Amino acid sequence: MEYLKKFRELQKKQNAYNYILNVVSWDSATEAPRGAFQRRAEMLGIISGEVFKLYTSEEYQEVVNGLFKELNTFDDATQKEIKRAKKALDKVVNVPKNEYIEYNKLISLSQKVWEEAKANNDWNLFKGNLEEIISFTRKFIKYYNTEMVPYNVLLDGFEEGMTMKEYDKFFKTLKEDLVPFVRRVLKDGKPLKRDFTEDSFDPKKQKEFCDYLVDVFAFDRDNGLMKESVHPFTWGTHPTDIRFTTRYLENFVFSSIFAAIHELGHATYEQQVDQKWNDTELNGGTSMGIHESQSRFYENIIGRSKAFWEVHYPKFKELFPKELKDISLDDFHRATNKVEASLIRVEADELTYSMHIMIRYEIERKLFSQEIEAEDLPRVWNEKMMEYLGIEPKTDTDGVLQDVHWSAGLFGYFPTYALGSAYAAQFYYTMIKEINIDELVKSNNIKAINDWLKEKIHKHGGSKNPQELLLEVTKEEFNAKYYVKYLKEKYTKLYL
Amino acid sequence: MEYLKKFRELQKKQNAYNYILNVVSWDSATEAPRGAFQRRAEMLGIISGEVFKLYTSEEYQEVVNGLFKELNTFDDATQKEIKRAKKALDKVVNVPKNEYIEYNKLISLSQKVWEEAKANNDWNLFKGNLEEIISFTRKFIKYYNTEMVPYNVLLDGFEEGMTMKEYDKFFKTLKEDLVPFVRRVLKDGKPLKRDFTEDSFDPKKQKEFCDYLVDVFAFDRDNGLMKESVHPFTWGTHPTDIRFTTRYLENFVFSSIFAAIHELGHATYEQQVDQKWNDTELNGGTSMGIHESQSRFYENIIGRSKAFWEVHYPKFKELFPKELKDISLDDFHRATNKVEASLIRVEADELTYSMHIMIRYEIERKLFSQEIEAEDLPRVWNEKMMEYLGIEPKTDTDGVLQDVHWSAGLFGYFPTYALGSAYAAQFYYTMIKEINIDELVKSNNIKAINDWLKEKIHKHGGSKNPQELLLEVTKEEFNAKYYVKYLKEKYTKLYL
Repeated sequence: MEYLKKFRELQKKQNAYNYILNVVSWDSATEAPRGAFQRRAEMLGIISGEVFKLYTSEEYQEVVNGLFKELNTFDDATQKEIKRAKKALDKVVNVPKNEYIEYNKLISLSQKVWEEAKANNDWNLFKGNLEEIISFTRKFIKYYNTEMVPYNVLLDGFEEGMTMKEYDKFFKTLKEDLVPFVRRVLKDGKPLKRDFTEDSFDPKKQKEFCDYLVDVFAFDRDNGLMKESVHPFTWGTHPTDIRFTTRYLENFVFSSIFAAIHELGHATYEQQVDQKWNDTELNGGTSMGIHESQSRFYENIIGRSKAFWEVHYPKFKELFPKELKDISLDDFHRATNKVEASLIRVEADELTYSMHIMIRYEIERKLFSQEIEAEDLPRVWNEKMMEYLGIEPKTDTDGVLQDVHWSAGLFGYFPTYALGSAYAAQFYYTMIKEINIDELVKSNNIKAINDWLKEKIHKHGGSKNPQELLLEVTKEEFNAKYYVKYLKEKYTKLYL
Repeated sequence: MEYLKKFRELQKKQNAYNYILNVVSWDSATEAPRGAFQRRAEMLGIISGEVFKLYTSEEYQEVVNGLFKELNTFDDATQKEIKRAKKALDKVVNVPKNEYIEYNKLISLSQKVWEEAKANNDWNLFKGNLEEIISFTRKFIKYYNTEMVPYNVLLDGFEEGMTMKEYDKFFKTLKEDLVPFVRRVLKDGKPLKRDFTEDSFDPKKQKEFCDYLVDVFAFDRDNGLMKESVHPFTWGTHPTDIRFTTRYLENFVFSSIFAAIHELGHATYEQQVDQKWNDTELNGGTSMGIHESQSRFYENIIGRSKAFWEVHYPKFKELFPKELKDISLDDFHRATNKVEASLIRVEADELTYSMHIMIRYEIERKLFSQEIEAEDLPRVWNEKMMEYLGIEPKTDTDGVLQDVHWSAGLFGYFPTYALGSAYAAQFYYTMIKEINIDELVKSNNIKAINDWLKEKIHKHGGSKNPQELLLEVTKEEFNAKYYVKYLKEKYTKLYL
């Protein structure tokens, strides 16, 4: 019990450091002036050194290893905590401090460099940073002292229990069962009556609509907020402080709307985690994949449903009467589900989205089996785009530079996006047995849907792993067939 | 030399902590959701404990005391640094750690409580917090182990070398020489043709105009930004990251404009400090008073000048053609210098402003000689308002609750505001011998004025104390007569 007490104390301190570092990173992503980044990197370098000490101190090691030895004497939740802490400790404890500091400095600088490279379509500006990040990542995996092959270490790091074996099976189902359907829709799908999706829509009014959506989804504004950033994301340190961003593109109005709804899904999850998990290892969401299932559920299953726009299209049309003059509700709803082979993942439609993920999965796989290097990426990227989607980006901005993830050292993360969509479909088929989603959406009562999600999924925080949660909620193990079924039903109705 | 090297190292670490704490406080003041404040206070409490350790560690004490013993072996600037570090150390070293942490937690919570109390005119909500803050402050002064009486400790803490003796002399000059003039203007001054200053002006357009002003004053946007907050302030951690806020009140358009110009004065100062003072004790501005002289110079001497509005009134009128239909340039210029006995310090005119400061000075004096207590403040406040300005606030929101300072433990700070105005006037009479301010303003070349300020004042950072700087720039010691002369000249012309 002495160890546990000490563990709680050290955890609290780690949380305090994580809190302030999170605030700095929110500031950096949403408003800090350009010129500040060098100084920030320097200051963060110093603080990262302190954090590293916290996570690797002899005291902390003794406490975690001590608890791990007495594992069986604790309740289930505490056992889970201890295992997670032990796993994290084993990952970090062998990384030399100077390399850890250097890496964090690199990551902090690389965000800025990536932003500039993307803005100026300048792959060479970013290439050196990416090479360094990859090299650090490969080196760090060796320190982890694990039996797993490198890419599996990364995959498992974002979604416990998922390795290339499971993902290969998942993507195989999609390739065999979904890809032919996607090809058919792309070839034979009825076109939109008039495609307004790239017309000009005043960003200020887009912002007004997104602000309206925050309330539609019953987001708790006393404990969170929406802001703007280059790349939309959700940020949180505690259920009382959950924030998210969207972005306003004049000629892509659906970008702001569906990014906002997507991030609202993440943010609502975080707000609804039971506060009893605060300051434990089981706070926040279950896993990346489960988190993404919530954002995809909001974005695609609610946000792109007919029921949703039945209620909210009038408000939207009120803001843009000229732009939408000849667009009926049905036209509009079909447009929100427009299918096309496209370049940008975050703006890809629901149906082709997983193709974008497969491309990244295959690239990362080869990067960490060292079959390719950073310098090969623009070429390989474009080849895979051609292979899966039959198109090729004209610029690296629209190609290999489009995602923030690699500049932040996030390899193995992308596959959880596709997994999330598949989880969402599996949850969906359980939900409709218990509540009438369509009716609730139509009566503008998303709060009731949030309540279901809270009770079944959100409140548990990280106290269950993805497999446990899925089994408990859906009474079945993960099964990609639900995802394929959902997509086929929806898009057959809309396009064939 | 070993000590100096170690000193630099420890300083850098302190700066890193200060940096992240500053970012958290910026976030807290400008956007963090309401619900987050409890968690933030808890997390900051923990980090404050770490910072306290840094500033009081045996290592740091040994280094600073060691350097102090060898003081004469260093160059002037380093000697100044060591003396400041020694003074700060002596102040903090005797404060028990738990009290330090408790105080910081209290301050963090009190900001929020004050905001609510002010918003709801609820003095009793805030009273308990203020009592605690005062009690901590009184106790801390005792720990400082100084010969000075309590209020002098506080005064000297914000403006080196200033005690009640100097301030009494300063305020005596104002009482004898300025107050009768103010009474005359209030009684006999020609009224405005039409007073539009409390008419409705769309806050969005106000914002647009303030954004325009940022460029008029040649503020460097790559290394700074403007935002919005309840109480305008300037924030900085480094010349590459200087930010400020203003606020938009629909029925008080001059509030946003002159708060923005005022804060631009502070912010420009911080941006123009020579980077050679980075990571030394001499970074940032010279003193509170000198800082305030720069903001007051911007706000009153430039921002409320005829020359300024000759150039910028057309732009302003373009935004508000209806509101300003019958208002000529002269009318407008006089309105920016409207004189009246008013309730709110930050919105007070230039001429009556120092009365507001005298009230706070006298109250704080009595608080720290323990002639009065927190519970007496609403009464005493209202009495003094009657005495100096002949009016009395109807609510505590417009009275004792109006300023943020006391909720942040800032006692002894207010007098530097009046001092700043007086410094500004003294600098002004030197400037006009060397550059033609009116001509530069008229040719929209405030950059050239900034250059003069940089060369004479800003670049020196904290390497000179206020007295040295004043003597060097104006060839004279501080002399309040310039302030009185400036005000009499200006307001005689405008009103008598």
